[in-house]
Amino acid sequence: MSDLPSHVTIAEEGPREGFQIEPGPIATSDKIALIDALSGTGLHHIQVASFVNPKLVPGWADAEATVAGFTPQPGVAYSALWFNANGLERALAFRDRLTLFGSISFAASEAFSKKNLNRDREGQKVAMAKMTAAHKAAGVPVTRIGIQAAFGCNYQGDISPAQVITAVSDAMAVAKDAGETIKDLTLADTMGWATPIRIERTVGEVRALWPDLALTLHLHDTRGLGIANAHAGMRMGVARFDATVGGLGGCPFAGQPGAPGNIASEELALLCQEMGIETGIDLDALIEAGRLAERIIGRRLPSAVLRGGALSAFRAKAA
Amino acid sequence: MSDLPSHVTIAEEGPREGFQIEPGPIATSDKIALIDALSGTGLHHIQVASFVNPKLVPGWADAEATVAGFTPQPGVAYSALWFNANGLERALAFRDRLTLFGSISFAASEAFSKKNLNRDREGQKVAMAKMTAAHKAAGVPVTRIGIQAAFGCNYQGDISPAQVITAVSDAMAVAKDAGETIKDLTLADTMGWATPIRIERTVGEVRALWPDLALTLHLHDTRGLGIANAHAGMRMGVARFDATVGGLGGCPFAGQPGAPGNIASEELALLCQEMGIETGIDLDALIEAGRLAERIIGRRLPSAVLRGGALSAFRAKAA
Repeated sequence: MSDLPSHVTIAEEGPREGFQIEPGPIATSDKIALIDALSGTGLHHIQVASFVNPKLVPGWADAEATVAGFTPQPGVAYSALWFNANGLERALAFRDRLTLFGSISFAASEAFSKKNLNRDREGQKVAMAKMTAAHKAAGVPVTRIGIQAAFGCNYQGDISPAQVITAVSDAMAVAKDAGETIKDLTLADTMGWATPIRIERTVGEVRALWPDLALTLHLHDTRGLGIANAHAGMRMGVARFDATVGGLGGCPFAGQPGAPGNIASEELALLCQEMGIETGIDLDALIEAGRLAERIIGRRLPSAVLRGGALSAFRAKAA
Repeated sequence: MSDLPSHVTIAEEGPREGFQIEPGPIATSDKIALIDALSGTGLHHIQVASFVNPKLVPGWADAEATVAGFTPQPGVAYSALWFNANGLERALAFRDRLTLFGSISFAASEAFSKKNLNRDREGQKVAMAKMTAAHKAAGVPVTRIGIQAAFGCNYQGDISPAQVITAVSDAMAVAKDAGETIKDLTLADTMGWATPIRIERTVGEVRALWPDLALTLHLHDTRGLGIANAHAGMRMGVARFDATVGGLGGCPFAGQPGAPGNIASEELALLCQEMGIETGIDLDALIEAGRLAERIIGRRLPSAVLRGGALSAFRAKAA
């Protein structure tokens, strides 16, 4: 039942995820240096900033300066994140530098939706319909659905595939009402509840209903199972993963201070490389970018590959 | 092709692996406290000490005091490690407290054997025959074969299943010559080269030849793939794993200073628990033991579960 893809796309979210959560103020020049370093690693997708309220997320008060400052490389799509009309407005100023697309986001856990967004399911439908209309008015296509807490929730406990299907159905209805065509679906293990078996079941059931959507897994390594979960996804044919260089980021949710963040891009790249799956990534360059990220934030990141290194160097020496 | 076991045994090697590599002198009383804490977690196998030359491994100069000092619990098998006749002699003094058995150890990489043991394949055959005779003379059964560097080697590069089979065959020949019956085979990813695919191939080929041996995987998390590799082993029906609480230990091999050590017992226990595989372990108690290990060595251990916690507490709160 293994359906390993021949090619995996790693969507790098280190700059956005990492600098949103780091406690100290990170210099804009350091953010730009990391984005530029990542641009030279063979990554094709880099999320560079978050256009969020600087009062709520002070770490991204310099989103404009960061996006204006990096040096775009051909063949790399740079994206950003926003949650409301104001954020969209700010992103629109960078149409020339950013690949803009809208997302319809729902949580599979209603408890998480209420806690994190202060909206129940019906409220989220209304909010997403409004955001989708705003995107449409701005000429930004809405092509993606994102499902938070798709494998479990600190506030609601286990999440079944049926709950994920309900959330995707809600999002699809919003898209349909707006006349938008969804191409991508991201299932996020926001709080680190996934296991290989949960991945298999949920991916399997979701794909049975929406076989034409390109699936992305957004995995957190909160309990050390992140790479095993990614591998389970690959075995189900999932070919796109969000990840962060060094494992930047963290889990800002209650009860887990200091918990690891996203799966590390270089661990995922190494897994692919060693299994003969193309990623287009120069692993040594990615490791260097991870070391740069560690210098910027001034502490060790969780990625084991930053300590253990790639195998290629040992292989070359042994030959 | 998934053959997940219903029960997994975790053989805890934290005390032995961890305290062998920690730089500072660890108080004997702290070693004993950790062993006693681990004894109350539901683990059935704990490796408590290493009877090695204190000049080479000063961290285990207090092996006798440690073994004499812990409080054995019923249902827990305590073991120790030794590499020569002198070490065996020292272990024999603790027949009442330790479960003693001999191992026949070979490296699948001849380069590693030469570097680590200063013996080539023929030299190792002679040494192992001698050690097996010493065990026999002492009435200690030789029941296990251990293969180091079974998935790759920093000095030799990739290791094929055929090379592992050669090493197992050599060890089986030593056992046969001595009239010993091997029951257990440990394949060790000593330097962190394994991937899920390598695990599948090597386990598959080895089991085809020796279907009656109980397989153990000894995995290092050098590059973040440890738990994914363990899961791949489980899918192949492997039901026994060595691991260390908190991920204690490290990779003392050239070129990887600071690289993570063994897979963390609590990450593996959580994986099993969440997938409905019995381990007999009280995960919360194991996490407490991991926190004790962190207090003893005075720094954070790599286990993500020590940060993220078990899911059961969140589940209980959500219910």
